[in-house]
Amino acid sequence: MYKAKIYVTLKKSVFDPQGETVLSALHSMNFDGAKTMRVGRYFEMDVEAGSEGTAKAQVEKMCNSLLVNPVIEDYSFELKEC
Amino acid sequence: MYKAKIYVTLKKSVFDPQGETVLSALHSMNFDGAKTMRVGRYFEMDVEAGSEGTAKAQVEKMCNSLLVNPVIEDYSFELKEC
Repeated sequence: MYKAKIYVTLKKSVFDPQGETVLSALHSMNFDGAKTMRVGRYFEMDVEAGSEGTAKAQVEKMCNSLLVNPVIEDYSFELKEC
Repeated sequence: MYKAKIYVTLKKSVFDPQGETVLSALHSMNFDGAKTMRVGRYFEMDVEAGSEGTAKAQVEKMCNSLLVNPVIEDYSFELKEC
């Protein structure tokens, strides 16, 4: 069994209105140290697989077919045996 | 300037209907290797601060006052100078 931690972010060239809203909320609360903000998604998944290679291939397939919109989003992930 | 990567997850004891929906969608697409799924949020933020300690304190304050609902969510973050 492997634990996958998947990070999904908007591509750098894509405007992030949610991030802008959070940033302006932070500024209105006097957190002036915050300079940029991008909001993404985070998935934690347990994957049953015989080897790390199989798990990796499965996670990539799941990302490309359901979890991530490859037109506007990038993703990365970590795998850990558990 | 520091780059903060903030991971927000629902506490383990809190039911995650979004995660359950994603998991059942994965199963309906024949990704039977997926055993559990929890969905969270991910923030990437640039923070202007004099030292790593100050940056850390600022990020914790932002999390507790806006980014995280401490009743149902846990968070962790990494800081990197940039």
